[in-house]
Amino acid sequence: MDRQEVMERIAALSDRSFRAVENTVRALEQMKENRYPFLGNFLNVEKEESADPDVFVCSMPIVPEVLNPYRIVYGGVTATLHDMAMGWMLEHRFEPGSKFVTIDMQVNYHNPGKGKRLKAEARLVHQARELLQVACEIRGDQGELVSTSSATFLQLVRKESV
Amino acid sequence: MDRQEVMERIAALSDRSFRAVENTVRALEQMKENRYPFLGNFLNVEKEESADPDVFVCSMPIVPEVLNPYRIVYGGVTATLHDMAMGWMLEHRFEPGSKFVTIDMQVNYHNPGKGKRLKAEARLVHQARELLQVACEIRGDQGELVSTSSATFLQLVRKESV
Amino acid sequence: MDRQEVMERIAALSDRSFRAVENTVRALEQMKENRYPFLGNFLNVEKEESADPDVFVCSMPIVPEVLNPYRIVYGGVTATLHDMAMGWMLEHRFEPGSKFVTIDMQVNYHNPGKGKRLKAEARLVHQARELLQVACEIRGDQGELVSTSSATFLQLVRKESV
Amino acid sequence: MDRQEVMERIAALSDRSFRAVENTVRALEQMKENRYPFLGNFLNVEKEESADPDVFVCSMPIVPEVLNPYRIVYGGVTATLHDMAMGWMLEHRFEPGSKFVTIDMQVNYHNPGKGKRLKAEARLVHQARELLQVACEIRGDQGELVSTSSATFLQLVRKESV
Repeated sequence: MDRQEVMERIAALSDRSFRAVENTVRALEQMKENRYPFLGNFLNVEKEESADPDVFVCSMPIVPEVLNPYRIVYGGVTATLHDMAMGWMLEHRFEPGSKFVTIDMQVNYHNPGKGKRLKAEARLVHQARELLQVACEIRGDQGELVSTSSATFLQLVRKESV
Repeated sequence: MDRQEVMERIAALSDRSFRAVENTVRALEQMKENRYPFLGNFLNVEKEESADPDVFVCSMPIVPEVLNPYRIVYGGVTATLHDMAMGWMLEHRFEPGSKFVTIDMQVNYHNPGKGKRLKAEARLVHQARELLQVACEIRGDQGELVSTSSATFLQLVRKESV
Repeated sequence: MDRQEVMERIAALSDRSFRAVENTVRALEQMKENRYPFLGNFLNVEKEESADPDVFVCSMPIVPEVLNPYRIVYGGVTATLHDMAMGWMLEHRFEPGSKFVTIDMQVNYHNPGKGKRLKAEARLVHQARELLQVACEIRGDQGELVSTSSATFLQLVRKESV
Repeated sequence: MDRQEVMERIAALSDRSFRAVENTVRALEQMKENRYPFLGNFLNVEKEESADPDVFVCSMPIVPEVLNPYRIVYGGVTATLHDMAMGWMLEHRFEPGSKFVTIDMQVNYHNPGKGKRLKAEARLVHQARELLQVACEIRGDQGELVSTSSATFLQLVRKESV
């Protein structure tokens, strides 16, 4: 399909659908600046100030694109926010260039994700050499607990891959 | 920002970035037809034939938008595919209109998600009244095991909400 | 084998082995008083004072019988303490006669379980009708974090069984 | 308390309680022969023949000592059997002297553990260098699925400790 045809389809979109396209464009442009991959930019996950140096805080807006059929945030999106917050926390905590892969992640869902934003607070629970045991809490606008998680990450050292 | 300005930014995108916008447009248009929410359409998750009636199979293409900084599929995207495959399996298995929410999900990551597609196979492990215990396996192009998960879903009955 | 023969074998045990038998006898006698089942009595799990009414605290001594081949507490024993602490917390929190079954439990192991005692702190994270989402932390003598867990319990209502 | 007094209390036990003491004595004596720690011997976990070389099978009898207040096997005992089966599988699979510690374990409970025996089938799902991702299924007398688990173990190499 040529670009012209796609442009015409975009022009025909409703305002609400158009905003989803605009969000995609914004994410693509931001990638060039912040070097983060697409998904984090698409979800618009942003680092926030943290009163506790041991807790890494980030948040994302709840846009229509992340809702499931029941109009609450998709469990997969919540899991993605957990994974991003914990991985980002590790990257901030360890020396630049450190790489981490998720070995396993357990996500518990409590209250429905709804309202304006989701806020994630991630912290390192324990480190055993290259194994990082991490936990994260996600809360909604009113401070209500939306989801908790725990995960095990592996720090990649030297040229090893998993 | 007005639509005209966004259209100009889209026109200025590289071909690769433009394809991500086109994917968004396709997802938005498909939503109107299949009534599925945005994210499943954006990830292009499609039902596949299953040789085993007890196993629900679906798959998604690996596009640049789902890759993490190490060029493998984001753990959050893999978790999203698990969650969607398991939820979709339940919707097919139970009577139309049944609703299910994820209570908890455990995801184990094995081999990196790379190649052309990820294929998910979900099945019901056990049902205890409204509690559904479910498992899912995700494999890559060569059949290599990318990720396994187990989850507990709650079937919503009558007008109850969780 | 008749009781007399068993008595002779007991009499022949070393002092250390004899203490394990004595522990079994103590557990069997305590069962008659506290009506708790054998395992909790054998592990000698005891309720402790808690400064926070939302946190249920109990502890158990580390005896040779709970050690694995590396001389640290068996992962299964730690998991048992998690399960008992969370279940006991629920029984204290809800009305007498309430029954709870474990649906799933995730246990993370951090520092080795060693020293004199393990102390478990369990709390209710969220309740969605009959579903109880619970968490527990186990610490050693020096306050070091030995293990954390999260679990989902189902409250049995009326004459239902799972 | 001196040994004589304990012997008198043992002599006063009911036959059922006496059998629990006899089980303890048997476990203590077996420890001397098989060098396994107490708990596995107390639970009487035994290796079984496996038709599949990739699946390690073991089983344990359901005795009164492992029942919870609802007369089904304690969730903690089931978790212990999972942990033992998976650890034992790894010890059989790797070279003698290899040591493994549990990093995390997720246990799902399906049908109640009751009847005569529980049978566990453990297998290696994936190995990423020293990280072992393992799964286990526990079934009852009729083949009914009692519990499933997945776990991550770390192989200890050289003189390292976790």
